[in-house]
Amino acid sequence: MNISPLQKARYEYSPKLPGMLRNGISDICVKVGDATTSVADQDKIKALFPNTYGKEEITFQKGSNTSAAKKQVVGVILSGGQAPGGHNVICGLYDALKATDKSNVLLGFKGGPSGLIDDDFVEFDDAFIDAYRNTGGFDIIGSGRTKLETEEQFKVVTEVAKKHGLTAIVIIGGDDSNTNAAVLAEYMAANNTGVQVIGCPKTIDGDLKNEDIEASFGFDTATKTYSEVIGNIERDANSAKKYWHFVKVMGRSASHVALECALETQPNICLIGEEVKAKKMSLSQIADQVADSVAKRAANGDNFGVAIIPEGIVEFVPEFSVLIAEINELLAGKKTEEFNALPNWDAKYNFIKAGLTAESFAVFDILPTLIQQQLFLE
Amino acid sequence: MNISPLQKARYEYSPKLPGMLRNGISDICVKVGDATTSVADQDKIKALFPNTYGKEEITFQKGSNTSAAKKQVVGVILSGGQAPGGHNVICGLYDALKATDKSNVLLGFKGGPSGLIDDDFVEFDDAFIDAYRNTGGFDIIGSGRTKLETEEQFKVVTEVAKKHGLTAIVIIGGDDSNTNAAVLAEYMAANNTGVQVIGCPKTIDGDLKNEDIEASFGFDTATKTYSEVIGNIERDANSAKKYWHFVKVMGRSASHVALECALETQPNICLIGEEVKAKKMSLSQIADQVADSVAKRAANGDNFGVAIIPEGIVEFVPEFSVLIAEINELLAGKKTEEFNALPNWDAKYNFIKAGLTAESFAVFDILPTLIQQQLFLE
Repeated sequence: MNISPLQKARYEYSPKLPGMLRNGISDICVKVGDATTSVADQDKIKALFPNTYGKEEITFQKGSNTSAAKKQVVGVILSGGQAPGGHNVICGLYDALKATDKSNVLLGFKGGPSGLIDDDFVEFDDAFIDAYRNTGGFDIIGSGRTKLETEEQFKVVTEVAKKHGLTAIVIIGGDDSNTNAAVLAEYMAANNTGVQVIGCPKTIDGDLKNEDIEASFGFDTATKTYSEVIGNIERDANSAKKYWHFVKVMGRSASHVALECALETQPNICLIGEEVKAKKMSLSQIADQVADSVAKRAANGDNFGVAIIPEGIVEFVPEFSVLIAEINELLAGKKTEEFNALPNWDAKYNFIKAGLTAESFAVFDILPTLIQQQLFLE
Repeated sequence: MNISPLQKARYEYSPKLPGMLRNGISDICVKVGDATTSVADQDKIKALFPNTYGKEEITFQKGSNTSAAKKQVVGVILSGGQAPGGHNVICGLYDALKATDKSNVLLGFKGGPSGLIDDDFVEFDDAFIDAYRNTGGFDIIGSGRTKLETEEQFKVVTEVAKKHGLTAIVIIGGDDSNTNAAVLAEYMAANNTGVQVIGCPKTIDGDLKNEDIEASFGFDTATKTYSEVIGNIERDANSAKKYWHFVKVMGRSASHVALECALETQPNICLIGEEVKAKKMSLSQIADQVADSVAKRAANGDNFGVAIIPEGIVEFVPEFSVLIAEINELLAGKKTEEFNALPNWDAKYNFIKAGLTAESFAVFDILPTLIQQQLFLE
């Protein structure tokens, strides 16, 4: 195949490795630390994970690799939304396995977790891996969102693992996928299968990082891609000089993407959920803050600008959480039927007014009708 | 100001010039060709443009510049949607004027054509121009969409031109802006103002090019930007392997953007308006073609793909043009009131059924209700 100069340069790029990995696989040793605990709900989690809870913290450092030499057969899956970096995790796994022993094997299970259950796999070799180095996407083996959670699924996975002689399963994915990995690890440990389960985190939120890895993959791509688009929109705003652009960015339970994009693109306004929560801001305070900024620029003759809004902003507003809780209460059990049977929105509106506390109704009442109706659709 | 390495590299870039301009401004001479004619409606256009119609074609070539030396004071405006390249047109104008004579002046009128009327301007100097070299956007002087078309506006523009001693006005913009330029040029010629009016074309369509300029600016950016996004979507489609993505791209009266993006990104499907027109395809033939492609891939186990659809595709469908003409006829004059007075969509639907030819009603009837209703909203 003819490849373009860009493809050639991309293949030749050598990704920067975390410090602990730079000396090669034979110069890494394990440092065993203190027993770990969960951040909260220790007893509950310990009960759910009796075989895997409280293990010692493991870090890697420079030193002589004293692991017992044994043939490794590792299975890897990609899970959830794609992010550039996923292919390189697989390439890195492959390189490390082959650097340790040429007879080690890396299997890729196709289409996400379901590949493990359907035993749909490919065995990687140099040519296969080399074609995907430094490329984006999860198309090397495809991705999927099947949940691994039932005893039956775990039994099938154990059979598949036994058939291939798997010594480890690596799951590359987000929160859900790593929950899958934790539950599967517990099963594998409880049943003495000898199969390690390793979760490799990928997240759109910027909350997973350490001294060696400055940002998780996913977050890095999302913020750079958004920032390019937001930068273009800012150029546009400053060219036409007559539009305000409101840009919604990903981030439901954290506003890290919004914050990073704001640092990169310097918009006129950026809402940060964590700030809204810390200041216990109300919806009207947020609206006032935005409106005041727009008015201040207008007073200066600048009737244009750019605002970044994280998609989950409303979930950080304390009064809104109370409203949602009251709505859930209002529609609990048979009351949903009663509500749905009402002939029109006016009747429903009065039902809502009668059912909410005065405080929550005040919050509800400043929302546009369309949003009010949406809240009662779900 | 501290500038980033990227900004520094961008400022230092020297754009590739068309062959005829590479030898510098003093080595360009004018070649006068045959009298020009319009592509169609010659008599009508000649009547509208008695002073500017039928002028000789002018091309530039290498040779000694024999223009009479006179001080040039040029005004420039940016018009319509921004496109990277607009700033460089202004930088190029500035460079050529200053290379000819340091005392030449370039004025930028702000915020589009209205800047010419409001006499809102900036005089460019080296520092101002250098800060915008090779940058995107139209923010150097802002853009706008005011039409220049009334006698009154032209009188004001003439006064402004006289005040500054303008020898030429350069209008950088699209179809509408170049129509403005043509009408203004006719006025300036008819009134012996001595002001040249020059249109510099910018277009999202790929239909303006010649031996020296391989693509107009606007088209170049749009296709590269779209192609980057479409390429990412293709990676995504091939990672998740379960979605079809339909990507609408700009291009109302031409499908050049769709075609160029398809050549760059190799999607599974791309509709081309010009092809639809040449083959006299019907809406159902187009739908069948798309559905057949989806089915063929599905038969191969590939339930995913990417299709590029130009926004103006439907205007190329002959039967649809007939339908639109019949709808306009159906609602002509007082019949709109009659139609709007009908109590509900069923009544309107029957009115439409009775009013259209059987052929056009058949076309109308395969459209989703929402689209049917939209056709009668306008």
